[in-house]
Amino acid sequence: MTTRTVRKLRALSPGECLDLLEPGGVGRVGVMSAEGIVMLPVNYAIAAKTVVFRTAPDTLLAAQANGPASFEADRIDEASREGWSVLVQGRVHVVSGEREVQSLERETRLEPWADGARDVWVRITPVRITGRRLGP
Amino acid sequence: MTTRTVRKLRALSPGECLDLLEPGGVGRVGVMSAEGIVMLPVNYAIAAKTVVFRTAPDTLLAAQANGPASFEADRIDEASREGWSVLVQGRVHVVSGEREVQSLERETRLEPWADGARDVWVRITPVRITGRRLGP
Repeated sequence: MTTRTVRKLRALSPGECLDLLEPGGVGRVGVMSAEGIVMLPVNYAIAAKTVVFRTAPDTLLAAQANGPASFEADRIDEASREGWSVLVQGRVHVVSGEREVQSLERETRLEPWADGARDVWVRITPVRITGRRLGP
Repeated sequence: MTTRTVRKLRALSPGECLDLLEPGGVGRVGVMSAEGIVMLPVNYAIAAKTVVFRTAPDTLLAAQANGPASFEADRIDEASREGWSVLVQGRVHVVSGEREVQSLERETRLEPWADGARDVWVRITPVRITGRRLGP
């Protein structure tokens, strides 16, 4: 027998989930490709209750045109086994309007981390937001 | 103008990816549901070059029978903007043989973190392993 630190899993409301996502950081975008589900980390921000991030023009994410997409972020401490995860299910599209892009640049100050031109802004508009907290 | 720490994105070989996953920890499983892509964190281990984790019998993950599934893990340091991510695309199935379960219990010592019976062992067998490293 090992001594287990057992944690309770509690559902979070959509409002609690958005509060947790609000500071931004690293999350993962999930989209379908010919080879199955692709999940890639992005440096994201929240703008008007949508998830936004920047990518390069030649990426799979930039090629999404109003298709289904999901977004996941979590903070789980492996030592204490406590934390949360949020899942946003929605639709993805490239932000094409110049004024909207400028507004996102001002509002989010989101910088891409990898080199190369990452001038494509992508937005995931939530249809369903769910989350869970793992704690004592 | 802001001062940017720009990082290079480098592709990792499948062997490098498996080495990065080997210690286990927290990753995310992606499967399709009626509502779209579901991405959920799991406490995983690597056994015989497959991804294994435990779940409860009443979960979406336990209901997967040889369907397509993906798995993602990453370690990205937000301060230095360095790290890696690995994507495993493959097929998911519940491990049903009692001897196989006992062997996984012995081999991985994987403990579920949330309370409740989490006696279902799930395995993702890779079809395609890709990864990227973000660094100087």
